[in-house]
Amino acid sequence: MMTLYGDPYSGNCYKVLLLASLLQRPLTLVRVDVVGGEVKELIKLNPNAKVPILKWQNADGAAETLWESNAILHYLAEDTQWLPGDALTRARMLQWQFFEQYSHEPYIAVARYIQRFLGLPPERQAEHQAKQAGGHKALAVMEQALSQQPYLCGQQPSLADISLYAYTHVADEGGFALQAYPAIQAWLARIGQWPGYRSMASWDQAEKSPRQGMGQTRQ
Amino acid sequence: MMTLYGDPYSGNCYKVLLLASLLQRPLTLVRVDVVGGEVKELIKLNPNAKVPILKWQNADGAAETLWESNAILHYLAEDTQWLPGDALTRARMLQWQFFEQYSHEPYIAVARYIQRFLGLPPERQAEHQAKQAGGHKALAVMEQALSQQPYLCGQQPSLADISLYAYTHVADEGGFALQAYPAIQAWLARIGQWPGYRSMASWDQAEKSPRQGMGQTRQ
Repeated sequence: MMTLYGDPYSGNCYKVLLLASLLQRPLTLVRVDVVGGEVKELIKLNPNAKVPILKWQNADGAAETLWESNAILHYLAEDTQWLPGDALTRARMLQWQFFEQYSHEPYIAVARYIQRFLGLPPERQAEHQAKQAGGHKALAVMEQALSQQPYLCGQQPSLADISLYAYTHVADEGGFALQAYPAIQAWLARIGQWPGYRSMASWDQAEKSPRQGMGQTRQ
Repeated sequence: MMTLYGDPYSGNCYKVLLLASLLQRPLTLVRVDVVGGEVKELIKLNPNAKVPILKWQNADGAAETLWESNAILHYLAEDTQWLPGDALTRARMLQWQFFEQYSHEPYIAVARYIQRFLGLPPERQAEHQAKQAGGHKALAVMEQALSQQPYLCGQQPSLADISLYAYTHVADEGGFALQAYPAIQAWLARIGQWPGYRSMASWDQAEKSPRQGMGQTRQ
């Protein structure tokens, strides 16, 4: 079984766990204390010292690692419905995933980190406030796309939806009210109904029943 | 012919022009004044109001657009040597491209923008200084990889090299001296020798001879 180093409450890690659940392909989860700085110890697995990190043994028994959440999604989704077969649709999926990492995550995820995990300390309130405009700009771009079609790349869901769901569905924890974005709200509800869907908290619940194992998918 | 909206001196636009040149697939370049804010007028082509934007007519005569530089690279590179056929190598290529957008570009490209295009004005010197540590961290991650293999994904070049070349080869314009990174320097020299390689300035030179046309590849 492959191992994922990360924290289910980090959107970048959660998106990998969510895809694994949707694919019914369990991963062993090794929790990393992101806030406590434990991730720096993982520099041998990822020289950029960030989670998530996927680790497994290849056919020769050697260890392989892969980092960057959206790259991990692509690897796990090979030959599945989550990777569109058509070249242009696949490029549009990548467009949304790069948008997520450059124009969405640095605002919404960082504001959420400051607010939810650090408790909005006085010395970071200005930074939290400065993230609001960029976050709302990203949400407006998504709202425009999702008001025209059910998923970011059209009629069918793809990795783009998983990538952008991860931090959008907890954007309120960063101070972003979603009331002004009805198409995003409908899209979030649609994703929550997918067979195999799991919430961030479900990994905690799974750990409370030890026999089930951390990485096991609960359908 | 496809049209690219952008500025050859923007690394994100240059990487697309460079790939098009390597593929001997000319693009019509429509210059956008990034510093002057002209890009905001392109919101109908990209709701996120960023360049580069690729535009073309599909088989039905309808306009198609694609944005996000690395997504455009993927689309243009379909069925070429620049997109590795092996799933794991392709995922590693994406790993480096997402690293570029999250951990490299926001430091090196932004510092270069402040220094080269804005002239390092007093009110942005603190921001320029704050970008240095993150930029050097990204360069150290690249140096480690490139000291073990000629290209980011191994023996063969891929889109990952084009993506990271774009801002790394002009990192000195953002205040990043590359003397401490011999493997990066050797890699930059290697890329500069590729058949079909073009420099950022070559698009200006091409425009000085009008008969040649802006987007024409000069082999």
